[in-house]
This record gives sequence, structure tokens and C-alpha cells, in this order.
Amino acid sequence: MGLIVQKFGGSSVADAQRVMNVAKIVTDTYKQGNDVIVVVSAQGDTTDDLIEQAQEINPQAAKREMDQLMAAGEQISISLLAMAIEKLGFPVISLLGWQAGFNTNSIYGSARIKNIRPNRLQAEIAKHNIVVVAGFQGINRYDDLTTLGRGGSDTSAVAIAAALRADRCQIFTDVEGVFTADPRKVEGAKKLKEITYDEMLELATLGAQVLNNRSVEMAKKYGVELEVLSSLNPVPGTIVKEYTKMEKMLIRGVTKDKDVALVSILGLRDTPGVAFKIFSKLSSKNINVDIILQSFGRDGTKDIIFTVSKDNGELAVSLLEDMLDEAKIVCNTNVAKVSIVGAGMESHPGTASKMFEALYESNINIQMISTSEIKISVIIDADEADRAVSAVHKAFIPND
Amino acid sequence: MGLIVQKFGGSSVADAQRVMNVAKIVTDTYKQGNDVIVVVSAQGDTTDDLIEQAQEINPQAAKREMDQLMAAGEQISISLLAMAIEKLGFPVISLLGWQAGFNTNSIYGSARIKNIRPNRLQAEIAKHNIVVVAGFQGINRYDDLTTLGRGGSDTSAVAIAAALRADRCQIFTDVEGVFTADPRKVEGAKKLKEITYDEMLELATLGAQVLNNRSVEMAKKYGVELEVLSSLNPVPGTIVKEYTKMEKMLIRGVTKDKDVALVSILGLRDTPGVAFKIFSKLSSKNINVDIILQSFGRDGTKDIIFTVSKDNGELAVSLLEDMLDEAKIVCNTNVAKVSIVGAGMESHPGTASKMFEALYESNINIQMISTSEIKISVIIDADEADRAVSAVHKAFIPND
Repeated sequence: MGLIVQKFGGSSVADAQRVMNVAKIVTDTYKQGNDVIVVVSAQGDTTDDLIEQAQEINPQAAKREMDQLMAAGEQISISLLAMAIEKLGFPVISLLGWQAGFNTNSIYGSARIKNIRPNRLQAEIAKHNIVVVAGFQGINRYDDLTTLGRGGSDTSAVAIAAALRADRCQIFTDVEGVFTADPRKVEGAKKLKEITYDEMLELATLGAQVLNNRSVEMAKKYGVELEVLSSLNPVPGTIVKEYTKMEKMLIRGVTKDKDVALVSILGLRDTPGVAFKIFSKLSSKNINVDIILQSFGRDGTKDIIFTVSKDNGELAVSLLEDMLDEAKIVCNTNVAKVSIVGAGMESHPGTASKMFEALYESNINIQMISTSEIKISVIIDADEADRAVSAVHKAFIPND
Repeated sequence: MGLIVQKFGGSSVADAQRVMNVAKIVTDTYKQGNDVIVVVSAQGDTTDDLIEQAQEINPQAAKREMDQLMAAGEQISISLLAMAIEKLGFPVISLLGWQAGFNTNSIYGSARIKNIRPNRLQAEIAKHNIVVVAGFQGINRYDDLTTLGRGGSDTSAVAIAAALRADRCQIFTDVEGVFTADPRKVEGAKKLKEITYDEMLELATLGAQVLNNRSVEMAKKYGVELEVLSSLNPVPGTIVKEYTKMEKMLIRGVTKDKDVALVSILGLRDTPGVAFKIFSKLSSKNINVDIILQSFGRDGTKDIIFTVSKDNGELAVSLLEDMLDEAKIVCNTNVAKVSIVGAGMESHPGTASKMFEALYESNINIQMISTSEIKISVIIDADEADRAVSAVHKAFIPND
């Protein structure tokens, strides 16, 4: 009994049968006595089709017009879902982003939500309507349509849950929840009952593509309780919230990320400010640096090693070659980052050594290490990534 | 030099190449120093596809949701056209119906325009933008999307031209203008340079499907000068306005309409009010009666003969059989209506006899006659309709 916000992605509404499936989930929740607001993305095919048409006409089209075009996608999916819910005999209304009160800034293609004017949503809920809202879109101060960019529909759902103080925000995906590792690849991977916002943020950053970071950050900021669950299999998913009951597990998950390039600057003359110059140069070209390691080389020189995304590897090397005459610069893209995440590791000093031991026993060489309060990452050879994930997972997650 | 409103239908923007063709026409008009507002319909395929998807999910869907769905069609076509115009290097912005200020009543699926709030349109024109407006759609007092129903985009274009006092409203179609008869079927059919609103209304009613009646009525009411012309062949089309210069032609066109059923009530006892009862009964069932003819039968009875659309023939017969015991009621659907239209015939008493003579000479039997100030219609055998149109056309339109 409460207000539930449910979000379904593009693949969940891809055809008539799936739309009916979503309508069933929504109306089941409503039948249990809840008020329900449903946020949907555009059908997957629609989005692709619209982008293709735009590309054919003008590959450099103004972003305002791209947003005007793309926003038609959710308009189609919300009205179709409303029709499906109506077909099942329930009161329903669909609302576009602007009708639902989504005010954004004017950065077309990746707009930020400024606020939600909740009047219309509240009025429809008061009439006991199931409300189907177009995710991913809003309106700016000029009355022009905007889109929120990647993961925008998750953010829309969390924003509504925050604005209307919903009891829960359910994010439906094609997996049953958040797992300790990719269940398709790691034997014994387990679904988590609960996870904290911070842990979820680390997992998302590390490549577990279940929830968009922006939406988790917003949920954390406004204390919105999230649930990640499957639209195909109706079982409880994973709850994301501020504090969790400590389970037996020390860590929440093991992830790998192959989108890593390791750049090494070897034999760098050790003058003051050289590290600053290097990283401000990279930053000025929008190259995001992840892990940094500095060590002393021979004869008063030092080595700086850092990671960037694979795309940026070559660019980083050429920028550095232009500014550093004497040093040797090498880029290795055949690496991967394997990480463990868990709020519990803070109070367990043995966590890192347990991870290193598992890798050592599997004969996997560690090239770099990086740690934070709730995360430990290592850089290893890319070819050994899957084996490393399995070994670390086995060491930390009890295989019952 | 002035403000031109141009309207393009769904087939004109069906694919990327046609969208570019429309962009070319629009920007050519702009280059000549005009301000240009373009009204477009949804791409033909999009509309069909959306209807099909809705049918699959819920054939009895609420009309509000159908309008929400259908309005996505023009959203796609306006943004694509704006991208095409931008590609040609011109300043452009697309506006949805509500962004362009279209306020309508709440009759979903066939809403009426209440007014146009012209602020945004005027502001964009002041910035020298070409403005691409979604036809067919508006918004009601509840901030919900509405569609205008059949011929809605023509109406949208005329409404903008009226609200902004445009110098001309050009309706682009797949024909070069209004012809004296269907040029694919009648040899010697000619394109008219000018035609009055009233003549155009009669022609439209009689089945020349060039312009929607609602838009012609609105153009007449607000004195908007229309031009019907081809989007494929850039030659002057037909101007529709209040008064026209008299050309040599006595009539503007010859049309045929095969959607006619002839219902005969024979041997009706002649009591007062019987005709009133018959036609009020038909009217109560929304059966629209066109031509009515009454004659005296034998023995104090009379015959009443009238035409309705083919759909309504059987229904009319069964309604009448229930209320009239003694009369014989017959329905003939193998008939057609052939008409001539022209404001000039009022002052030429010989027009009717010239038409009848042409039919007589072709050995075509006239079953009924109906006349108005600017129109003469005859009901004849359906199989002779094409021959009748050709004969009448030849008699009135000089074949030079």
C-alpha cells in the first residue's frame, strides 16, 4: 500500500506482446492497492529507426531537432502501454515529459532535470489513474523539448520517486538483480538482496551495467529506495539503499572492465610540477584518467603509469610525446581492470591480501593496484581477466 | 516579398529524398525574400505503422491515447524536414502543434481549432527562421494533445495563414492544381487558373479530392488566398479566392460521384406531414439525404425518390419499411451523380439545357435532376458515368 514508481526500458516494450507483459506487471502492482507511476523508454527499434532517418538527411543536425525527433519515441511507447493497460480494464493516462512537469536546462541531448512540477502527476494519482510517463525527456524554459541522454529514463523514474516521495522505485531490467559477478560467466555468482548506494555506484562505474550512475546518485541524494528486478521473471530483486544489513559476505561483487589502456611514462626527469603538467594537459583534452601510479626509476628519474579508456590511449601518448622529449612513452591496451566492491572491507584489513593471494594462487601477475574505502582494483593482463574474476569470486563469495 | 504558408502532405515527406525535395521548395521561396511557415503531415508509412501497432494492442483504445500516439507522426516529420533545411544552410526551427499555439476543443480525433496563440510563430519569424509546424495537431485546455481529423493539416495551414495574415497559403499536392475534370480520365481536362471558394466547395463535395472542405470554408471565412499546386512539378497552380476574373469558361468543372444509392418510395398515401416524418426519421439515424424528388402517382398516391450514400441505402430501406406499410420501397445502388459547377451559370439560363442536350446526344438517360445557384447534378446509370462526364466536359470546355 503506497506509491510505487516502476521503470521499464526499451527492450521491455519492443513489441505488442512485451507491452502486454509490462501492462500485466503494472496492473498486478495496482491491484495490490498501490498507486502506480510507470516510466518507459522508447521501443528499441524506434530509436534506431529515428537515428537512421536523421543520419540519412543530415548527420550534423542541430541537437535541438534531434531531441524533438527522439522524444517522439517515448510518445509512441507511453500511448501504446496506456492502451494495453486500458485493455486489461484499468484506469490509465499517459503523460509526455513536459505534461508530467519535467523542467530541464537547455543542454540538448544531455539535459539535466531542474525540477518536477508535480501538479498533474498528483492530480492523476488522486483520480486513481495509473500514470504512464515518458522517460528520458523534458522541456526547457523556452518550451522546447529536451532529452536527458544516456540512462535518462532511470533518472526520470528516480526523479519522480523523489518529487512525490514514493515508497519505492523499481527499475525493471533483463536481469533479476545485482549479482556478485556476471552470472553468465562466473560459476556461483549470487544475487544480492541489498546493496548500498555507494557500493552500487562503484559497481556501475566498474562496468556492471545494471543501473545508470546518475540515477543512483540522485537516489542517494534524495533517499529513494531502489529495487532492481527482472521484467521477465517475477521474483524479488536487489534493493539499493543507504544502509544494508550486513550479510555474511565481505564484498558485494567482483567486476572486470576491459575498456582500459595502460600508459607508461618511463625515465621522466624529476622536476617539480611535472605530474601536474602531464595531467592538466590530459584533462584539457577531456581525457579521463583512472588509476595513477608513480615510482622512482634510475638516476634521479621517475616512472608514471596511469590508465585511461581504450579510445584515449593513442591520443594520450601523442600528447605526451609532444611535451616530454626525454621520456619513453608506451601504451598497452591488452590489459583489464578487475575489482572487488564492498562497504564491509573498510573494517577488514585482510581484504586486499586475500584478493592478491587468490590471484597469486592462480598464477596471475598484478601490474597495478588501486584502493578506495569500498573498492580494490588491480590491472592485469586482459587474457587473464575472466580467470581472475572467477578466482577472486571463489575466494570471497561462499559457494553454497 | 511577404509571408507565405506552405503545406505538404504525408506522401511529400515519405522518404529522405522527398524530404530534401520539400526542403528545396521551401528554401527557394525563402531565398526570394519571403518569410516562410511550412506545415507538414506525418510520413504516410509512419501513420499506417502507428495505427497497426495500436490495433494489435487495443482496437478499442481511448481516443485521447490514439491522439497522443498519432501526434508523434508529425513530430518525426517536422524535425526531419528541419534537419533537411538546416542541411541546405538556412535558419530553421520545428514547432509541435502546441508550441505553435494551436488551442483546440477536446473532441479527440476530430478536434476543432479554437484559436492560435501566435507569439512563438511571430517570434521565430522575427528571427528570420523558417518555421516548420506540425499540422493536424493541437492541445486542449487540459494540456492534452488532440488531432484535427481528416484533412487536418490543410486546416492547420489555413488557420496559421489567417492568424498571421499571410499573403498566401500554398497547398502542395500530387496534382498541378484544380482541373475541369479528372485529367487521367477525361480528354481535354484543363487546369484552372482561378476558382472561387464556393465553386471549390462544390467541387470538393462532389468528389474532387484536392482540398478538404473544412480548410476551404475557413479560408473563405478569413479571406485567405489559397493556391493548390504540385510538389513534384514547379509550375503555377490554381488560386482559390473570393472573386475570380471571368474566364471564357462558363463552368469550372465536371465531376462524378459513384457513392450514391437511389431510394424510391412508390405509391405512398398522400397524408399531410408524411414527407416530414420520413426525413426526420432518416435524420435521427444520421442518414444524410442529398437530392429529393417528389411526384404524383396514381389514385391519390405519390412517389418520393431520394439519394443517400451507398452505405446508408439498405438501412434507409429497412427504416422506411418499418414505418410505411402500404408503399413499395426500392433501392438502386447502380447509379452515379454527374455534376457541373460554376459561379457563371447563374447568369446563363441555357446552362442546364446545354448539359441535358449533351447527355441526350450521347443517349444517356437522366433519372433525376437537382440544381443550385452554382451547380447542376443529374443521377444516371453508374455504367454510363465516365461517358457522361466526357460528353458534358466536351460540350462546356473548349478543346483548344
